[in-house]
Amino acid sequence: MNKERKKFETPTRRSPFQMLMIYYMAAIALSTILLSLPVSHKPGIDIPFIDIVFTAVSAISVTGLSTISIADSLSTTGIIFLALMMQIGAVGIMAIGTILWVVLGKRIGFKERSMIMTDQNQTHFNGMVQLIKNIIFLLLAVEAAFFIILGIYFMGYYDSVGEAFLQGFFMVISSVTNGGFDITGQSMIPFQSDYFVQIISMVLIIIGAIGYPVIIEIKEYLLHKRKLKKQFHFSLFTKLTTVTFFSLVLVGAFGIYLFDINGFFKGVVWHESFFYALFQSVTTRSGGLATMDLTLLSDTNHLFMSAWMFIGASPSSAGGGIRTTTFALVLIFLFTFIRGGRSVKIFHREVYEVDLNKAVTVTFFAIMVVFSSVIILSYLEPYSLDALIFEVTSAFGTVGLSLGVTGDLTTFSKIILMILMFIGRVGILTFLLVFRRKKDPAKFNYPKERMIIG
Amino acid sequence: MNKERKKFETPTRRSPFQMLMIYYMAAIALSTILLSLPVSHKPGIDIPFIDIVFTAVSAISVTGLSTISIADSLSTTGIIFLALMMQIGAVGIMAIGTILWVVLGKRIGFKERSMIMTDQNQTHFNGMVQLIKNIIFLLLAVEAAFFIILGIYFMGYYDSVGEAFLQGFFMVISSVTNGGFDITGQSMIPFQSDYFVQIISMVLIIIGAIGYPVIIEIKEYLLHKRKLKKQFHFSLFTKLTTVTFFSLVLVGAFGIYLFDINGFFKGVVWHESFFYALFQSVTTRSGGLATMDLTLLSDTNHLFMSAWMFIGASPSSAGGGIRTTTFALVLIFLFTFIRGGRSVKIFHREVYEVDLNKAVTVTFFAIMVVFSSVIILSYLEPYSLDALIFEVTSAFGTVGLSLGVTGDLTTFSKIILMILMFIGRVGILTFLLVFRRKKDPAKFNYPKERMIIG
Ligand SMILES: [K+]
Ligand SMILES: [K+]
Repeated sequence: MNKERKKFETPTRRSPFQMLMIYYMAAIALSTILLSLPVSHKPGIDIPFIDIVFTAVSAISVTGLSTISIADSLSTTGIIFLALMMQIGAVGIMAIGTILWVVLGKRIGFKERSMIMTDQNQTHFNGMVQLIKNIIFLLLAVEAAFFIILGIYFMGYYDSVGEAFLQGFFMVISSVTNGGFDITGQSMIPFQSDYFVQIISMVLIIIGAIGYPVIIEIKEYLLHKRKLKKQFHFSLFTKLTTVTFFSLVLVGAFGIYLFDINGFFKGVVWHESFFYALFQSVTTRSGGLATMDLTLLSDTNHLFMSAWMFIGASPSSAGGGIRTTTFALVLIFLFTFIRGGRSVKIFHREVYEVDLNKAVTVTFFAIMVVFSSVIILSYLEPYSLDALIFEVTSAFGTVGLSLGVTGDLTTFSKIILMILMFIGRVGILTFLLVFRRKKDPAKFNYPKERMIIG
Repeated sequence: MNKERKKFETPTRRSPFQMLMIYYMAAIALSTILLSLPVSHKPGIDIPFIDIVFTAVSAISVTGLSTISIADSLSTTGIIFLALMMQIGAVGIMAIGTILWVVLGKRIGFKERSMIMTDQNQTHFNGMVQLIKNIIFLLLAVEAAFFIILGIYFMGYYDSVGEAFLQGFFMVISSVTNGGFDITGQSMIPFQSDYFVQIISMVLIIIGAIGYPVIIEIKEYLLHKRKLKKQFHFSLFTKLTTVTFFSLVLVGAFGIYLFDINGFFKGVVWHESFFYALFQSVTTRSGGLATMDLTLLSDTNHLFMSAWMFIGASPSSAGGGIRTTTFALVLIFLFTFIRGGRSVKIFHREVYEVDLNKAVTVTFFAIMVVFSSVIILSYLEPYSLDALIFEVTSAFGTVGLSLGVTGDLTTFSKIILMILMFIGRVGILTFLLVFRRKKDPAKFNYPKERMIIG
């Protein structure tokens, strides 16, 4: 009753977390309709409904896992719809996430806020609309520039100018939104010796995955006058997330090479090995495009890449997973606690305890969700454990890399992957906070009592 | 320099954690020597040194993983040595762990202390020696009673009285210490239809795994006069660990049955299914004996049982893993945080934050240790991922169940399993605390700054 009254009193007020969920659900519904239209399909192709929904969820969550071949099934119209969906999916969290970040900044006082945004001019705080416009404009500008570059460059690959620009258009969108879909029919494998295309794709993936607040701060820094540059402070968030991001890329590339040094990489020239390892590492951050057939890598590598996909991209980016900050905070928490420290410090800043609690909650919950999904899939499917772990973490990290089994999964398993993509995209925390009660139910304190741990 | 001075001033003072480590290392060294003696081997049998060390570590950590067949390799003398080692291994943490618990109790004041030990008479606090004597006496009394029962009962199984009592002796020791070794050559499979033997073994395993403080409290409760029984309060620790322990047993049995309902359990009579599922669930707590060939279970079940072995037994018991309390605290922490609560409460008591931090640290560190081990083993070994995960968690949980690949592992993999058994037995926390710095290095505070999580 109380609940109903509350609902009646504030009918229009929704938490930003609920907004985000509704945004994504509506986008998925719309995408499903668009992809169901006959005009979206190639002539004579009929796509089962579950696969249409799967493609819609995968596109809106910018994952890129697919149960159908996009190149064989979708018409040019369908392909453009798909690109649009990735765009909507990528902008969603970038925009809403960044707003949340600013709102959070407002709540914690001006001093911290100005550190967060490293702000000398106040426009960002005053204009939310301006902020979103900035985000979208920046994205479109990047896309336009690289669309022209790749389109022209691809004229060397494709017979018609239209085809070259369509391929360029799709690769740019798929890379920068971290969408991970391909219309070549075999991801980036046709460009496995073309380092120019690979570098462009990697740069775009990183722009999409590194987090929008970081890009804003870098832009601010670059626009600063030279003599003011020394006074400029990057926020703790930007430092931590960027260091973590690139550490993951480097360690990832090294690990991928190491775990197949006597396998896939045996006899491969150094520069080819370098680009294979680097591209596959960058793409586990959340990109999802691949320059090789991943089934050629060892089981160890599949497991290693699964861990990397589980971590995922930076917050407020086009990526998924538990996020780089979460991973970093958990690591730092562990390290601090083991050494006997009480408060957690990074880059001469102390981290709020509530943020540590969040990081821990997100990680544990994610582990349980992923583990349960693997258990269920291993029960339903005949495939090897490493393949199932790979597809599950790929979905949760909204990465979209695949060992090729997703298309052959049972409907129930497909539904599980869809749920994982959705949770991975909106973020565990958002997902959990939607169900959160407003107030701490206990108003009295219980006596404390010690425990034996471990 | 400061460090050296400190060392000089207090040369004899070692932390209880260091004591525990030294105790186990010394026990392993001694055991290795004993098992190297020719008198320990069957005539003509020569055991490689790595396998002797492995057996010693496995026995002292009461794990039961084995790279050799005990029945085929060890003489009666060797078997008695092995039983002795399990005894030493099991008593170690029970005794030292319980003392730590009491010391901890002393530090946090009389009120909590009396809750912990639910104590009306003060003898336990005053006499450490008395406490250890109690532990050992109780263990020996239980062993003696069941030795006689099983010895007599086994006369129906074995030709000679000596063999019957040797088998009874070894099964009792192996069960109650959670040692998990067998001299039947095929674990408890010869008794797969003998529910009497199975029930005795399960009861003994539970006594060994449920934690010594719990047994002390139950003994106290039973010795209380009837009219005082109502005033008796079990400690939070006993409540939490016992509820968790039996929940794991029940859910475990249900899960094992469910995940092979169309596999192993298809066509098996209900009471056989019941005992198969129940025994295999109890044994994952840390026992390590099995009434069936575990390779007959599905991959899903292997993964499920791996998770259960990872959790392991209760603290201050003969078992390993992250421990039941750790698992329970992490779950309760998650649930509390998700619902928006600030302090963690169980059974009308608030949990200390430092204990939550410990539980979180232990679990994360354990996950990283286990994951890294699986990665390394998957690189070195040709076996399937589920088998490797199974052996690794079995070692970490000091459970000793096996899918049969441990004997064929490379030396390096055997060393990793030994390290896991050791860490699993002394406990992650003890292991970490040995390396802990005495004081929080930072005497000044940094400004706090917010983060984006997940
Ligand atoms: K992706
Ligand atoms: K064991």
